Amino acid sequence: MALYQYFNGQILPLEERIFTSNDLGLIRGYGLFDFFRTYNGVPFRWDDYWERFENSARSLKLTLPIGKQEAYAVLLDLYARSEAPEVAFRFLLTGGIAADSVHVESPNMVIRTESLPVDHPQGRLQGIKVLPYSYVRDLPTIKTTNYVHMILMADEMKQQQASDLLFHKDGEVSELTRSNVFLVKEGRLITTDRHILYGITRKVVLELAQDLMDIEIRPIYLPEMLEADEVFTTSSTKWVMPIRQIGDTTIGQGAVGPYTRVLQERFEALLASWGKS
Amino acid sequence: MALYQYFNGQILPLEERIFTSNDLGLIRGYGLFDFFRTYNGVPFRWDDYWERFENSARSLKLTLPIGKQEAYAVLLDLYARSEAPEVAFRFLLTGGIAADSVHVESPNMVIRTESLPVDHPQGRLQGIKVLPYSYVRDLPTIKTTNYVHMILMADEMKQQQASDLLFHKDGEVSELTRSNVFLVKEGRLITTDRHILYGITRKVVLELAQDLMDIEIRPIYLPEMLEADEVFTTSSTKWVMPIRQIGDTTIGQGAVGPYTRVLQERFEALLASWGKS
Repeated sequence: MALYQYFNGQILPLEERIFTSNDLGLIRGYGLFDFFRTYNGVPFRWDDYWERFENSARSLKLTLPIGKQEAYAVLLDLYARSEAPEVAFRFLLTGGIAADSVHVESPNMVIRTESLPVDHPQGRLQGIKVLPYSYVRDLPTIKTTNYVHMILMADEMKQQQASDLLFHKDGEVSELTRSNVFLVKEGRLITTDRHILYGITRKVVLELAQDLMDIEIRPIYLPEMLEADEVFTTSSTKWVMPIRQIGDTTIGQGAVGPYTRVLQERFEALLASWGKS
Repeated sequence: MALYQYFNGQILPLEERIFTSNDLGLIRGYGLFDFFRTYNGVPFRWDDYWERFENSARSLKLTLPIGKQEAYAVLLDLYARSEAPEVAFRFLLTGGIAADSVHVESPNMVIRTESLPVDHPQGRLQGIKVLPYSYVRDLPTIKTTNYVHMILMADEMKQQQASDLLFHKDGEVSELTRSNVFLVKEGRLITTDRHILYGITRKVVLELAQDLMDIEIRPIYLPEMLEADEVFTTSSTKWVMPIRQIGDTTIGQGAVGPYTRVLQERFEALLASWGKS
């Protein structure tokens, strides 16, 4: 594998040091990112990822220094250089250097190619454990780089053999650190649209569930989630991932539920055929 | 002036690119900073700044790769190289590179020398305007790099001829984007200790006010602040800065109040004699 990155119009080796220590991404946490991958060598749901990235940039008042077509050409170039069957792409847009450390002048744009993240197929077979955590993301609809609580709690999660945090605030559930959450109750699929990042995998799963079950989009409180028949989380890297335990509470029978299983199969079938027209 | 930076044991030119694009400071917003300066060539209240930085690092579970004595030697070295009468120092500690983008392995530590920030003496003479803004900082006692709202609102502040934001949540006042806030009512000095960064200038001002007035440390709600006789903010760069207007409300007579004036004089006398024993 030969991994490269795009940085403001140049293609550079992935490990090259490209940021000065006064970038607003570093000293002010002013940045956006996104992360997605190829299946069968074709970027998954590119239109959706680009649209979200563009919206996030607009919300942070950052002018994108690259357009959609040019960005797609960069993806194809980076993929070809990688000589790998599949790659992941990480977008990063920061505030760049500001004379007064406050007013953005010229954002810095990076597109990294990365090897695929480690997959956890046993999680999809048996379900994962998550810890309830009282927190709601600031500016949740924007994919900012603020993941302080996730990093801060990483050791605690390991100790408790948990894979992730389930954010709730005043009882209202929003999302996991990097993924959306759904519950199934009496054959209905329920997910919230409040205080969340609108996940692309979430969107795809809602499409795939259309003809399978009734769908409710509404606020969810923690007690309802703990008493659900099935709970699962969705993300670009986790796909459809069952949650078998929230804190000390076992969900349903503690095994992957039947609706979750069907949605997993449909999602994985979509991935298997992605790019093969 | 010849400005340099310390980076993990090396001294490098200030503009050298030292960060790779996968540092947790960039992709996860996982970082700390601090900022202070010399007066008469001597770092101001070094013991206090170091203690706060060490506490912040501990709170973020980042192991400091440099000790207090070594860090002070770096300050003196960077100051000597600068050939300037006064400099500012910016500390930055990030999560560094993590194989899984989650578990910290080896933090990156930077100490930058910078020219002094632009001073606004007319602000201290006439007072500044601030905008009330509904927000409370996450992890407020830690000087993390999360300043997204400040950058996001920078243009709006300019348009409204305001210098800063006054954070309040459910009516309770905490702080400005980078400074603490005090009010004076009938000769009493009142400031909060909830949801704030414990400012070094705040600490010094409380020392200087000891024999001048009664001091109350307690929660403050916005209506009380709007009806105060005097309001001012304190920071390493603003010193004792009067606030003459909050949103549309003029504070007191809209001029610098007598207690604020005395505290300004005392603080500036301390700076003038700093390092001269």
